[in-house]
Amino acid sequence: MDIVIVGSIALDDVKTPAGEVKNVLGGSAVYASLSASYYASPGIVGVVGRDFSGEHMRVLEAHGVVLDGLEKADGETFHWYGYYEKDMGTAFTRDTRLNVFASFAPNIPVAFRPAPFLFLANIHPELQLQVLDTMSGPEFILLDTMNLWIETKRQALLQVLKRVTMVVVNDAEARQLSGLDNLLQAARWIQGQGPRGVAVKKGEHGALICWEGEVGLLPAFPLDKVVDPTGAGDTFAGGLIGALAQKKQVNMDALKSAAVIGSIMASFTVEEFSIGRLAHLNEKEIRERYAHMRRLSEIKPLELDIIQGG
Amino acid sequence: MDIVIVGSIALDDVKTPAGEVKNVLGGSAVYASLSASYYASPGIVGVVGRDFSGEHMRVLEAHGVVLDGLEKADGETFHWYGYYEKDMGTAFTRDTRLNVFASFAPNIPVAFRPAPFLFLANIHPELQLQVLDTMSGPEFILLDTMNLWIETKRQALLQVLKRVTMVVVNDAEARQLSGLDNLLQAARWIQGQGPRGVAVKKGEHGALICWEGEVGLLPAFPLDKVVDPTGAGDTFAGGLIGALAQKKQVNMDALKSAAVIGSIMASFTVEEFSIGRLAHLNEKEIRERYAHMRRLSEIKPLELDIIQGG
Repeated sequence: MDIVIVGSIALDDVKTPAGEVKNVLGGSAVYASLSASYYASPGIVGVVGRDFSGEHMRVLEAHGVVLDGLEKADGETFHWYGYYEKDMGTAFTRDTRLNVFASFAPNIPVAFRPAPFLFLANIHPELQLQVLDTMSGPEFILLDTMNLWIETKRQALLQVLKRVTMVVVNDAEARQLSGLDNLLQAARWIQGQGPRGVAVKKGEHGALICWEGEVGLLPAFPLDKVVDPTGAGDTFAGGLIGALAQKKQVNMDALKSAAVIGSIMASFTVEEFSIGRLAHLNEKEIRERYAHMRRLSEIKPLELDIIQGG
Repeated sequence: MDIVIVGSIALDDVKTPAGEVKNVLGGSAVYASLSASYYASPGIVGVVGRDFSGEHMRVLEAHGVVLDGLEKADGETFHWYGYYEKDMGTAFTRDTRLNVFASFAPNIPVAFRPAPFLFLANIHPELQLQVLDTMSGPEFILLDTMNLWIETKRQALLQVLKRVTMVVVNDAEARQLSGLDNLLQAARWIQGQGPRGVAVKKGEHGALICWEGEVGLLPAFPLDKVVDPTGAGDTFAGGLIGALAQKKQVNMDALKSAAVIGSIMASFTVEEFSIGRLAHLNEKEIRERYAHMRRLSEIKPLELDIIQGG
């Protein structure tokens, strides 16, 4: 197993302009592990309730996701009730029932601890610190977080930042965390707290990647139609760390390539509800979207005279 | 002369978080023609008042901008009083004094009429139609417009759209014009009205380029610091049409390259007030930014195994 992923496993009720689903599989660890599974071997650490179906387990197992860190607790699985309005830019929460997730304490199986890659999906920063204390010392640690922890658990979050390799945040979170409007400045501020890298997700506008002193700018895969944006961010992070785990080296070229993989995987996720599309991809469609991304962002060498003095 | 540019020539008072200037040179035709002048030979059609200084004329002349279409009318030059707030994403207008621009009727010099490239900067669509009727039949016509005309002169604007080669709009205008939220759909809707190409400017998020059936996505040049965004859009359009006019061929690769030139020129414009930076560029700094844009958006071929069946 290459990657430990610690996060939520959820059942979701989601309504978007394209339709509505109830009780479907979701959660950061689910999206991230399925996405990563196309490139490396992930194991998840999380908790579900007695209502979590064997069918959901089998989907994850069929993708080679190692489930030894999946705790089954008395009670019901974390349930999110959300909806999106017309532009689907923002997820609105109608209700969140934490259920068994309320008392979640990550219990990392001994066999998971030497894993070289770790993705700390969005959970309480204190729990993220516990995970860091338990692991043997991963080579690459990717961190996600959210506005709630930036607001209410800033000190703990800054402690986590000191100990991770790379952070993945959306543009609003980057601005909120740094207090800076300019995204490049915000990313550099975050790097100043410890991480060598930052990926700022800008939704339909793609991603800004910073690695040490270098910068990369990547478009999002252009889609005509989005059915459900739920899980896009976690799918991005999972694809990114999955690609890096296979590559086993991190530099700007590898990171950009991994972030393109993340974007493509997210582009599949949003085309159906839940994991409807993400769980059923083939090599050809992934390679086609990667090639399409290369083509549409390729800039040819400058073949123009510049009239001196203007 | 390769490019006729029809638009405003203005004196601006601008206040931004970085400072404040009064009575500085501005206007769409000024930014666009200076930007284009590094790549081709532009001539401008516009009107100024008696207060327009000889010094401003000399700046334009020094860049080879042909001024035979610059009318000097009785009265004062168009004056814009604007400001930007913290994130500088939106220009706010404190006052607009149209002055001599209120009765502007583009008078295209006979020598300008056979020019192969035409940029219709943002003016009343009825005036844009008059320009189209007067020109001999340019090979490539680039159109800009604004929310005001989309709202109040929609029918005339749709007539213009039928007759131009390419449209440059910002994301809000593309959505407003098409009634569609998805930018790719919005761009395709605009293409459906006549133009072969559309460039949607997304500010700090770069540009979406559509040319016939193809799509390109380009980042904006990443800047740590913006002094004054005024003129960025016109500088982009001027660089784009300037590069195309030199290249003398239009296809997706040439367009993307030209749009990168446009972005770079805009990145210089916003680093100082007015044309403080745009009027004083050298070949080396342009080539450096172009190379930087290529580097940061380059995506290497996919060198990963995709685990079949996920």
